[in-house]
Formats: sequence, structure tokens, C-alpha cells
Amino acid sequence: MARPTPLSGFPEWLPAGRVVEQHVLDTLRRTFELHGFAGIETRAVEPLDQLLRKGETSKEVYVLRRLQEEAGSDSDTAAAEGSTRGEKQLGLHFDLTVPFARYVLENAGHLAFPFKRYQIQKVWRGERPQDGRFREFVQADIDVVGAGELPYHFEVELPLVMAEALGALREIGVPPVRILVNNRKVAEGFYRGLGLDDVEAVLRSIDKLDKIGRDAVAGLLVAEAGATAEQAAACLDLAAISGDDASVVDRVGTLADAHGARTELLETGLAELGALIDAAARRAPGVVVADLKIARGLDYYTGSVYETVLVGHEQLGSICSGGRYDTLASDGANTYPGVGLSIGVSRLVSRLLSADLVRATRSVPSAVLVAVMDETHREASDAVAAALRARGIPVDVAPSAAKFGKQIRYADRRGIPFVWFPAGVTADGTETTHQVKDIRSGEQVEADPATWSPADRDRWPSVVAAG
Amino acid sequence: MARPTPLSGFPEWLPAGRVVEQHVLDTLRRTFELHGFAGIETRAVEPLDQLLRKGETSKEVYVLRRLQEEAGSDSDTAAAEGSTRGEKQLGLHFDLTVPFARYVLENAGHLAFPFKRYQIQKVWRGERPQDGRFREFVQADIDVVGAGELPYHFEVELPLVMAEALGALREIGVPPVRILVNNRKVAEGFYRGLGLDDVEAVLRSIDKLDKIGRDAVAGLLVAEAGATAEQAAACLDLAAISGDDASVVDRVGTLADAHGARTELLETGLAELGALIDAAARRAPGVVVADLKIARGLDYYTGSVYETVLVGHEQLGSICSGGRYDTLASDGANTYPGVGLSIGVSRLVSRLLSADLVRATRSVPSAVLVAVMDETHREASDAVAAALRARGIPVDVAPSAAKFGKQIRYADRRGIPFVWFPAGVTADGTETTHQVKDIRSGEQVEADPATWSPADRDRWPSVVAAG
Repeated sequence: MARPTPLSGFPEWLPAGRVVEQHVLDTLRRTFELHGFAGIETRAVEPLDQLLRKGETSKEVYVLRRLQEEAGSDSDTAAAEGSTRGEKQLGLHFDLTVPFARYVLENAGHLAFPFKRYQIQKVWRGERPQDGRFREFVQADIDVVGAGELPYHFEVELPLVMAEALGALREIGVPPVRILVNNRKVAEGFYRGLGLDDVEAVLRSIDKLDKIGRDAVAGLLVAEAGATAEQAAACLDLAAISGDDASVVDRVGTLADAHGARTELLETGLAELGALIDAAARRAPGVVVADLKIARGLDYYTGSVYETVLVGHEQLGSICSGGRYDTLASDGANTYPGVGLSIGVSRLVSRLLSADLVRATRSVPSAVLVAVMDETHREASDAVAAALRARGIPVDVAPSAAKFGKQIRYADRRGIPFVWFPAGVTADGTETTHQVKDIRSGEQVEADPATWSPADRDRWPSVVAAG
Repeated sequence: MARPTPLSGFPEWLPAGRVVEQHVLDTLRRTFELHGFAGIETRAVEPLDQLLRKGETSKEVYVLRRLQEEAGSDSDTAAAEGSTRGEKQLGLHFDLTVPFARYVLENAGHLAFPFKRYQIQKVWRGERPQDGRFREFVQADIDVVGAGELPYHFEVELPLVMAEALGALREIGVPPVRILVNNRKVAEGFYRGLGLDDVEAVLRSIDKLDKIGRDAVAGLLVAEAGATAEQAAACLDLAAISGDDASVVDRVGTLADAHGARTELLETGLAELGALIDAAARRAPGVVVADLKIARGLDYYTGSVYETVLVGHEQLGSICSGGRYDTLASDGANTYPGVGLSIGVSRLVSRLLSADLVRATRSVPSAVLVAVMDETHREASDAVAAALRARGIPVDVAPSAAKFGKQIRYADRRGIPFVWFPAGVTADGTETTHQVKDIRSGEQVEADPATWSPADRDRWPSVVAAG
């Protein structure tokens, strides 16, 4: 078999890269659990008709078919009919929101609401791969969903949980993040106050601001949202407002007054946005910034919306986005409003590794390699390893009784910090004691397998800020 | 949207079930890391031509196609041609061995050999779902792979790592396991010694012993492996040998002598099997049993083979299987021999839950619910929660300032053991202190958010033996 080559858009890490990814995932999970979010996993597949309910992403869905089934059927016809032999057509999920909504409906009778869940899984999109955009990638989502109602304070808390989770990664060298927040009620209230009723068209135009610039968006607002030049300018003035304190609320109010655009909806939205900015300034100073141009493409958001940039890597795009939706799901009897955010873990980790921001200190979990004097004494080495493992120390045993120099190189190549030489009798009859060598410093000391421990930092594979 | 129903073969757990699964996964990971195995993940997809190299499982592969691509092409033709628009046809992996072999070849220049890795991921097979057999399920694999050579002692160590990992689950109520081992060299050496050279045909017949019984297998051996009645009886006598001590080796030797079937290969195999039984009797007494009927269907095993049953649930089939293979992969220049085992995590967890063997004590991570006196004092409750979380205690805050009775029911429904009442001033002006109530015992005490801790067993969601 020839040496295989990577598949574009399907990232895989070498063991040291996986150590970094695993550290990120463990840190996120730990923060989510500290805040009481229950972990769930959903299956990777959903019925195709459910995945296609959101028109815009339909082109990106991977459809599944069993090879056996395929051979005997005209699959284009099968796709059109939605099934073969009575089985539902299935596709791979492209986010964790659609599966979560389905999970909530399917299990509503067994869940306690408000239901706080985190979910860390792979998702798939058949998009053209590019920097930070993959066909297979890991997302880490938190959502709170209520039955019938959901208090506003969750819109304040969820971005703060994400700020804490991402902030906990600072110590390994992850750059600080900035969470940009807006509120759909502010935008919609303002637009309607101006007399612009095609709110979605306005949002779609504003969403393009970073890509095509102010003048082009002004043109779009006139052409597609039916705005006058003055209305377009007002929308753009709103989008230009940003800041991390209460003055943002005042500036929006002043702008609205200047255009006679104050509405009840705008007032509600400003009160919510103000509360979020206030709480964030106290609980995560400098992290959360109101940015009135944040639109979020998806039309199901109804309150707060969030995007997150890695400071110094803004061109990577948002690494953590989400918002409030009044209808995550509905089964006729009940409606389930929610608020949630999703971290693009692969996008983040890929940048951490490619920009050499974070590095694993070793590629294996082992803190200690136990040397083997000769194959007849392997059992003595295994006994030392067992004693250390019983106290939670990850240990490897040398694969062969090679010369000690070669065994030390085995440890060195993997970044294992300590090599243990078991007590024994050498070829010339000398009795030796247990010795452990820190191969970084060269220091070697006597040690007892029943009591010796490495320093905490050497106990588990650790990741450190690189450079 | 109508209430969705589960998809047969795609298991999902409620939050409490997921707590059990997560505990199992964490325990396996911890044991694998203690033994120095590096964690990797591979992408979910492989090129279809690679997945189809093993003929037998080809019918079970899920083929992927992008919806967009599908619409414009005759997909039967595309499948036959193996690609559309130059993109490789992809399928979902059906195990973790094929992807690992590809990963080793692809990254050989960046890996240190012998390479010990664990891998815990979902796999997919389009089989007919039945008890313990799913279309989407989690596997947890460990393998050691060498470049060019791999010492025998790894064939002893790997099943012992699995014995330790599965043994660590005993404390939550998982039944004991029995690891059944055999050695291909023993079987092949014995058959060849008898004069039966179609070893694969003999193994295929013996593999059916549990399903169709001794007489039917004897018939198969005559009809398909070209055996005489006497040869068939000898093969069945070999398959009937089992035991957990060195007498097994003696009994096989005696049987071989009776048939004049001692060969060099048989001797080698018996020495290996004997060494494994010896080491296992010392390091995991009672867990490893030699069972000469274990054949393993796959033809790439060349030494030790392993199957594992859950004691009392033998009819569930093997929950952890594997073996030694001389050629995991080969790129012309190098051959990579290995030994590995794979745990069917979903099969195991599904049985733990359906047979009510293991149960989560709560469905959320939270050990404490902080009550909220009224919405204007939510900040005081958030401050208590932050103080507790800073010491690693998972905490939830009441979603609304309902009556305390309702807030206690919120905790009770989720199994949260403690409710915290923050210090404050009641409606009639009385100053109150911080109080924490164990809602299981009803005991309520004064507590300081800066120092109070729950008992370790209440700190994380715990799983216990049920019944």
C-alpha cells in the first residue's frame, strides 16, 4: 500500500497536537460542568428532511447510504422519494443545534426544564475547505432551554460561561478573546422605528459590512431593503456603535431620537443589552463588548446575539457564536425557547497549532519510563510501574532490554521526563538500589516505588505557551 | 413538528445514562493513560477503496455523498467509477483498526515506535440492529504497533491493561469479566500436525461451535476443511480444552502427542500461551482463561487472540476482542506488526443501563443549587456560586426566585444533594446567615462560601451499583 495522503478538510493531529486538543476539550468540559451543564451526546445522523429544514445549509449536508442498498436501487429516485425499503434517508448533522432540538422534543417527558446541556461532538459540512473551515470539525456547545419560557438572565450568563471557559485557556497560551454582543430587539426596534419593515433584508445587508464595506452596504440597503439614503445612513450609524460600558446604550438612544426611531421594542432591547454589558463589566472585565453591527445570518435569533474573536487573530472569524431563540423547537403542545453558544474547537485548535501558540511538552501521557535491565527481569520493572500507577502516575516500561542509553533515548524522543532504574544485581554481582533520573537536568536520586512522586506539572502531559 | 421517534440502531442516552457512559469512558481513558498510551483521534471517513479491502464487511459500509454533488450526477455510475469531479468516494469507518493502520502509514515519519495509542470514537455499520448490535456505536481501542518488529511481551500486557480497565469498573457495579485467550500458532500448529493444511477453513468451522454445536462442526470440518472423522474429532477435542493454569499447555501437548501432531509452530504457540497464562495468573488472578475454541473470524491474526465476556451476560457476546497481527500495515519499505484490543463501549453501556446494573445518582454535574431569594438578589447567589466553583465544586443557581419549596424541588428532581441559602435580609428585616441544606437528610447548617465543601462522593455526579 502506498503512503496515504491527508484528505483536505478532514484535520487530524499528531499525538502532541491531540494533547493540546484534549487539554482544550477537558478545560471546556470542566467549566461547563462547574456551571451545572449536563453532558449529552446525540447520534451523528438525522433524518434528511429534518436537516434540510434550514434551507441555506442544505447544500452542505453529507447524505448517507448503505453500500448494499445502493447497489440495487436508483439512488437519485430514492433520494427524491426520501427512502428506500421504508428506511428514512439519513444525513450527517452539520451542527449540534438541530440534533439538540430534536433530542429535546423526543425526550421532553424525561427532561427537567430549564434544561442546561453541553455537547462536544464532531459535525460535518461539505463546504470547500479553507483556512479555519473544515469538512469535519469539533464543536462544543452549551444551551439552556426552557419549556414555554426562559428568563432573560440566561442571556447574560451563557456568554459569561464561555468567557470563563475560554479564559481558562489563557494559562496555556491561548490569546484573550473578545465576545461581541448585540440584541436583535435593538436592531429590529430601531429599523422599524425608522420605518424599515423588511428587518431580515436589513440584517442580511448589515451582515456583509465587514466583507464589502460601508458604501456597498448602503447600496444594498437601498436596493434590497427599500431604504432611503437617509435610512441607510442611520442603519450604518447604528452598526458603527460599539463599546464595553453603559455609554453604548446612551449613544443608541441618542441616535434613535435623532431619527425619531424610538420604539418599545428598542427600549426593551436596550434594557437587555445594558444589563448584559453591566454584568459582564463586573464579572469578566474587558471581555464582552457591545458591537451593534453583529447581525448573525440566521433568522431564528430573537434577542441577544454573540460572536467571539481571538484577539490578534480576528481574520480567523468567530470562534464562538450563538444567541437567544424563542423557538428552538415546538411540538404543538409546547414551545422551547433557548439561548446557546457554540465553540468551533477545531478552528481554534488548528490555529493554536499552526501559529505555534501552544505546544505539548510531551507526546505521551507517561511521566516515567521504567528501564528494563534484561528480559528476565522485566517482571521487576513491571512491579515498579504497577506501584507508581497505583498512585496515579502514568508510566511506560521500556519495550526492550536495550542498552540504558537507548532506553533513555526512548524516553527523550517522547518527552518523558523521568527514567527509573529498578533495584537489582548487576552482571558483576553488585547490588543496586532503585534510582530515578530526571533526564532534563541529568539529576539522579535514590527513590522508593511506594512513595516517590513527580512534581504535579510532570505528572500529566502538559501543554505550555510556545515561543 | 410532531414528536420525533428514536432511530433503530442509533442509541442515545438520557442525561443520567450519559453520566454512566461518561464514567465508563473516563475510567478507560485514565487506565490507558496510566499505561502510557497516547490518545489519538482519526477522521470519521476513509476513502471507500480502503474500507472495502476487507471483503467481508463491505456490505456494512455507509457511503457518503454531498447532497449538492448527488443532484447532478448518476450516482450508481459515480460509485462504480469511484469518484465524481475528481473527489475520492468516502465512507464512514466501521472500526478503528483500518483508520489507525492508515494513520500509522501516513505519519510514520513523525511517530516514535513502538507506538502505543488509545482511540475512543464512534464507528458505523449498516447492519440489522439487534440487542447489543448497533449501527452507530463507540469503540475504545488500544494497540501497540512496532516498526518491523514487536516483542511478544506486549501480547501479555495488552489484555492485562484491558483487565485493569474493565476491573476498575467493578466498583460501580459492572460485573466481572473473563478474558478468553488462544494463540493462532497453537491452532495452526496442531491442525498442520494433524495433516490439515486448509487452516482458515478449520478456523471458520471451529468459530461456529457456539452457534451450531459439536456435531454440526464435525460435519463442516469433513465437508469444507477436508478432514477425516478422526481429524475432525481431534480438532474438536482441542477446542474443548480450557483453563486458567499451566495444565492447559500440558493437556494440549498430550492431545497433540496422541495424534502425532506436535510441530515446531505448536511448540512456539504453547510457550507463548503458557507465558500469557502465567503472567495473568499473577497479575490478574481469575480473569484470563485459555480457551482453545476461540478462533476469531478475521484472518489477519497471527498470534494471541482475545475475546471477553461479561460474567453472567455471556449471551451478549464479546465486549472486548482483538489479537496479534504481523502486518497491521505495510508501505513497501516497512511492515508494522501490532497487537490490540477493542472494547465495544456502547454494547457494554447499553447492557449496564437496560439491565439496571449501574445507575447515576444524579442527572446533572451540580453538587449544589444556590437558591435565589428574589431577582434583585440574584447577584448575591451568583457570588456564592462563583466562590464554590473556584474550589472545583459544580454549582447551579436557581433559574427563578420561586418559593424556596419550588427551588428545593428543582434540586430534588435533578438529584442535586445540597441547596444553599445565601445570607441576606428577609422581608421582615431579619438578617440571615449563609445556610446549606442536605436535602436527602434534611440537615441544615451554617456555612461559609469561602470554605465549605461537600464530601468527595457528592462532588461529582457519581454512578453506583443499582439494585
